[in-house]
Amino acid sequence: MDTKMNRREMIAALAALTTTGVTAAQESTSPESEVPASRTGPGNLITDVEGLQVGQSQNESIRTGVTVILPDEAAVAACDVRGGGPASRETDVLKPENLVQVVDGIVLSGGSVYGLASADGVAAWMGARNRGFSFRPTPGIPPSPILPTACLYDLANGGDKAWGESPPYRDLGVEAIESVGKEFALGTAGAGYGANSGGLKGGLGSASAVSADGITVGAITGVNSMGSAIAPGGKQFWAAPFEIGDEFGGLGTSGLAAGPEDYSPAMQPRTNTTLACIATDVALSRVELQRIAIMANDGMARALRPSHGPFDGDIVFALSTGRKEAAAGIPRQFLVTRLGALAADVLARAIARAIYEATPFAEGGNPAWRDL
Amino acid sequence: MDTKMNRREMIAALAALTTTGVTAAQESTSPESEVPASRTGPGNLITDVEGLQVGQSQNESIRTGVTVILPDEAAVAACDVRGGGPASRETDVLKPENLVQVVDGIVLSGGSVYGLASADGVAAWMGARNRGFSFRPTPGIPPSPILPTACLYDLANGGDKAWGESPPYRDLGVEAIESVGKEFALGTAGAGYGANSGGLKGGLGSASAVSADGITVGAITGVNSMGSAIAPGGKQFWAAPFEIGDEFGGLGTSGLAAGPEDYSPAMQPRTNTTLACIATDVALSRVELQRIAIMANDGMARALRPSHGPFDGDIVFALSTGRKEAAAGIPRQFLVTRLGALAADVLARAIARAIYEATPFAEGGNPAWRDL
Repeated sequence: MDTKMNRREMIAALAALTTTGVTAAQESTSPESEVPASRTGPGNLITDVEGLQVGQSQNESIRTGVTVILPDEAAVAACDVRGGGPASRETDVLKPENLVQVVDGIVLSGGSVYGLASADGVAAWMGARNRGFSFRPTPGIPPSPILPTACLYDLANGGDKAWGESPPYRDLGVEAIESVGKEFALGTAGAGYGANSGGLKGGLGSASAVSADGITVGAITGVNSMGSAIAPGGKQFWAAPFEIGDEFGGLGTSGLAAGPEDYSPAMQPRTNTTLACIATDVALSRVELQRIAIMANDGMARALRPSHGPFDGDIVFALSTGRKEAAAGIPRQFLVTRLGALAADVLARAIARAIYEATPFAEGGNPAWRDL
Repeated sequence: MDTKMNRREMIAALAALTTTGVTAAQESTSPESEVPASRTGPGNLITDVEGLQVGQSQNESIRTGVTVILPDEAAVAACDVRGGGPASRETDVLKPENLVQVVDGIVLSGGSVYGLASADGVAAWMGARNRGFSFRPTPGIPPSPILPTACLYDLANGGDKAWGESPPYRDLGVEAIESVGKEFALGTAGAGYGANSGGLKGGLGSASAVSADGITVGAITGVNSMGSAIAPGGKQFWAAPFEIGDEFGGLGTSGLAAGPEDYSPAMQPRTNTTLACIATDVALSRVELQRIAIMANDGMARALRPSHGPFDGDIVFALSTGRKEAAAGIPRQFLVTRLGALAADVLARAIARAIYEATPFAEGGNPAWRDL
């Protein structure tokens, strides 16, 4: 029956991508029991994806912040909005029928609708450096930096929001883009600085995976979810089945259980939202990235319970830096399947790491996971 | 800080729905540790939802079948298509801006595109009995039964598909609607008869939950997924954290773990698909059911890994029989959140039960879970 592929055949088929410096040969001759295990990238961060940097900023008294994902060159991207309370801009441009097929960056921000201004700062900064889309570049006419952006709701977290007509987000955007690099802080940082998650302090998380044949998939997320990242009655993360090493405590899965209406420690419905961006170095089309974004949102579902509810503006951006070409001869949908499944696992891990790394505010606010 | 609700407050708020014969009073005075546990309905089937019946048919030599979900009266419904390879009909009618706000039934079928004919049989049967939508009923003009339908791909499962120009699905649809009742078979039955799932025999599953205040949420599903319902290296179900009693073996969660590229026992990419319908007795609008369908799809993500890929035509229908009214004074979005979260858990359990109950074909085909 030709629908049947055993585990080894499937992995071999999916893995038969010739990538820079790596061939599928090592895979095709190994017995099933020796299928090479995937591993995290060197930093276990989204910046393990070649051609990508991250910058962050935050304001401690306001309790909010901004995270910018910056590809070295304009990159193909897509997004999947799945929550009921999104705050976003430049998501329409990502639709496949539209003109511009690439983005100059992705912005994640606190501040709900006010946070959308963070991209104003990033756009002005990039435009002044002649970075952005121009159909026909002309001296004296700035290009248009394409910066899809989404925000989480951290207005009611106890920070000082008396900004009147001068919200801080434009400046926070500039500060974030000026700080870009390969390393960045997790936990109470960037877009996750002011976040809360299911009764605990939320935060900023990231993770990566490198496949046996050298593909890197990374994720970054600001976790401000209504639902919880941990199972009731303990500290174990819903994402525990996918943990690599002890990247979020290594507590295992034995206590993962929840009755139908058990959402402890607490749901905090107001306007919540988990923001995420996944990235890979494999060259992909926008349509392929759309399916990968959809599959990555399943990682959010596995890491947070409940998720994608009316109070969450959950969104996943997906981005390709295009540094590696997939091998010809393998159906592209196998590649998409494989990358979507990888992205889901990586995002689930990044969400757990956000909560694991979070530290509490100096005073007031939710307890941090580490203090449970 | 007004965003904060502790666990008890949240559950009390969400549970403060006055439903037939049940009030929220018992909840509002109980301490947190005594929040009443939810339980399954009497049959642990979708038909525990008042006002709902299910009928099924199957053909053993062709290895396919049909499942019809039949509300006693036309019911409000919505759907969320999430997979990359759907086969469906009458899903456009479910959009909120369209004329007809109710459906006469939901049809799930094997047979890929050929299975869409199953609804022809059901429609003819119902129309001949004067059941269906008429804007202005007129003698001699049959009503139009509204029957949203989705199909899974079981064409390559080893059954005899040499039907030429006479596929069997219209007749299987009639046979299914004629068999409706409160009880129906699980496992290798109905729309799940010919199904396969992640290298194992797939099947038809169902489950239900009754909340402390008497709301019933049920699910039914035909599981033909590319991804697996069990974690690699054992028999434990991904849905194990949500299991009630030993409804799918009671094996627990201690072995739930998977590396980034470990999808054993096997992925079988061709055209797969998990079909589902969730239902509740609480009166809801189509727009509210839309969000509940979206949240229910998270239950599919938790029960199957990977899910919602290019080869899966995954879809969740959501239906309300409207037998109970939610209490006034509670924000409707709290109700939606609660029901969406319940539906996700119930669907995850139903998926596991499909695989748990499946029996292998008489000869050939995938092993059943029970034979692992």
